[in-house]
Amino acid sequence: MTPLKPGSVIGILGGGQLGRMLAMAAARLGLRCHVYCPDEDRPAAFVAAACTAEPYGDEASLKAFAASVDVVTYEFENVPEAAARFLARHVPVWPPPEALAVAQDRLREKSFFVGAGIATAPFAAVDDGASLTRGITTTGLPAVLKTRRFGYDGKGQAFVADAAGAAEALAALGGGGLLIEGFVAFEREISVIVARGADGETRCYDPAWNIHENHILARSVVPSGVGAEVEAAARDIAVRIAERLDYVGVMGVEMFLETSRGARLFVNEMAPRVHNSGHWTLDGCVVSQFEQHVRAICGWPLGSVLRHSDAVMANLLGDAVEAWPRLARQDDTAVHIYGKARAVPGRKMGHVTRLYPLGQNPEVRTLASAAAPRT
Amino acid sequence: MTPLKPGSVIGILGGGQLGRMLAMAAARLGLRCHVYCPDEDRPAAFVAAACTAEPYGDEASLKAFAASVDVVTYEFENVPEAAARFLARHVPVWPPPEALAVAQDRLREKSFFVGAGIATAPFAAVDDGASLTRGITTTGLPAVLKTRRFGYDGKGQAFVADAAGAAEALAALGGGGLLIEGFVAFEREISVIVARGADGETRCYDPAWNIHENHILARSVVPSGVGAEVEAAARDIAVRIAERLDYVGVMGVEMFLETSRGARLFVNEMAPRVHNSGHWTLDGCVVSQFEQHVRAICGWPLGSVLRHSDAVMANLLGDAVEAWPRLARQDDTAVHIYGKARAVPGRKMGHVTRLYPLGQNPEVRTLASAAAPRT
Repeated sequence: MTPLKPGSVIGILGGGQLGRMLAMAAARLGLRCHVYCPDEDRPAAFVAAACTAEPYGDEASLKAFAASVDVVTYEFENVPEAAARFLARHVPVWPPPEALAVAQDRLREKSFFVGAGIATAPFAAVDDGASLTRGITTTGLPAVLKTRRFGYDGKGQAFVADAAGAAEALAALGGGGLLIEGFVAFEREISVIVARGADGETRCYDPAWNIHENHILARSVVPSGVGAEVEAAARDIAVRIAERLDYVGVMGVEMFLETSRGARLFVNEMAPRVHNSGHWTLDGCVVSQFEQHVRAICGWPLGSVLRHSDAVMANLLGDAVEAWPRLARQDDTAVHIYGKARAVPGRKMGHVTRLYPLGQNPEVRTLASAAAPRT
Repeated sequence: MTPLKPGSVIGILGGGQLGRMLAMAAARLGLRCHVYCPDEDRPAAFVAAACTAEPYGDEASLKAFAASVDVVTYEFENVPEAAARFLARHVPVWPPPEALAVAQDRLREKSFFVGAGIATAPFAAVDDGASLTRGITTTGLPAVLKTRRFGYDGKGQAFVADAAGAAEALAALGGGGLLIEGFVAFEREISVIVARGADGETRCYDPAWNIHENHILARSVVPSGVGAEVEAAARDIAVRIAERLDYVGVMGVEMFLETSRGARLFVNEMAPRVHNSGHWTLDGCVVSQFEQHVRAICGWPLGSVLRHSDAVMANLLGDAVEAWPRLARQDDTAVHIYGKARAVPGRKMGHVTRLYPLGQNPEVRTLASAAAPRT
């Protein structure tokens, strides 16, 4: 693929904070962005050269959009697969729509991991009470019942402690189109941000330790503290996923680290896009995940993933963003505010990244030696 | 000054690369930008929420612009002073138009430095042959004859080696409205990027050593290599200038370091705006000079000037930007391309910043010990 020259136009499906940060990264490289987003609150549009505010199902608008750009990408994984496939008939779309399709359906995603020889928690499809009962014989209890599609930040999930709870969870989640997963009593969650270029080269950022509150990412800590061996295994998993999908772009891969019988990694999910747990790269690396994604989809060589600092990224959810005057005073802290119109509870309104010299991050928790990787 | 909330709008006079990088820094903080720029090639507009492309002398357009923004700033010092003063009657304008007025006239600027007790090369106003001859008795030879207004990157300057050359230079530069300066045989040029907040707080980035080619900045190297004592003296000069101007925003102050009789600093010029020699802060610091300027003019607290890495910034002038495919492959290098339409020779089309761990910058040249500061 001949790299797209500065001045070329990237089409971005979606107008949220990820699209906004992608557009700003593209601008660093002299590339322009055209945002396609039907939502009224589309903060990416403020930093893009153009914006189309039409539904994802409007083929005439999609066609005009395709004609106005040199490549298309997306900033969230619930972009309708049909829109991505339609655009791909007119203009290159990266990451490949197939990655979108896999990530949009948890059953398909888990099956894909199994096919790639990557460990996940045990799982089974659930379409009714009978399949739920059968599923539990596979997953054991406790388990988590999840919708197969459109879940995020803990939405569309229910914890299942026992058989009675199973029936209740099934009813709460609509009775079908579900998946049950064995509950992994993980020591911590880590994630790998992997980039794969159009030439097949892959690079991974240092993994982050992700701390959730109320099922939403609260903080990412880098380094992850799990040690070089586990980190190497985690990178290997992320690279394997990217290669198997013929992926081009940046992907976030979340993994549970279980340590009860030595260190074992289970992939939780993949996000075929830039990822919240990689926001620290904006301030901690020479080339951020956003620029890396832009480089990949535009056929540029991948950039350095050098990490020059330790980092703690903390999300600002809902009203927490109102603390900006105080946060702006904190030393060695980069403040990012997304420019969204409304601060709904739990909504990602911004984030802060605090940097520390390498090796001096006070939030790093080293994995207990008892949990050394199983050989 | 109550800090401007995220969602507020910054008006930027000028649409070049400095305005572009200011707009991107503002976006990080959730602030929007409205660019005012009559030029056809206005790369800042691609990353701004709005753009007005009218002449700086059009009062109706300026008035509408003022009504659409919460604060106005400028990205180059040749913005007509009248436009800045007109806007200041309707909306806060920072840095103060007075700083613009001082910086636009070399005679006024040098006189301001003298009034502030800051050393400059000896100088004299030149309006004809007689004042030139008198001036040379003040400056000695060699000297440099310069236009008082609208000079940049060596334009409007002539080196004067002897009396015959003086007459020639006078004719070449139009015979009047000039300034003659004693030539400083400097060991190196350094610059300080100083920020002053609305509350009067000042912070300086680590000084850079600036290397020019053909009178245009080619590279800035950080650290400057001149040692802690000279750097402290340089910061002190920059802070004194900012305070005396009741400055709000970021300013670049260029200084010559002369070492023939111990280390002595002579201020060359001040730029009442973000400065090319501070571009390395985008990649080498937690908070860049661009964000720092935005913070100051919006009444936010100043951010950290922590430098986490050593850095070498190199400008990409004219066709040099065509090397981007090779530059994009270099390790630990951040590529910045400004998105300008035409690559005129000498035009600033982009820059690259190479980062090194602290203390490992191979381009740093430590000042010879013979040139220790004079006490």
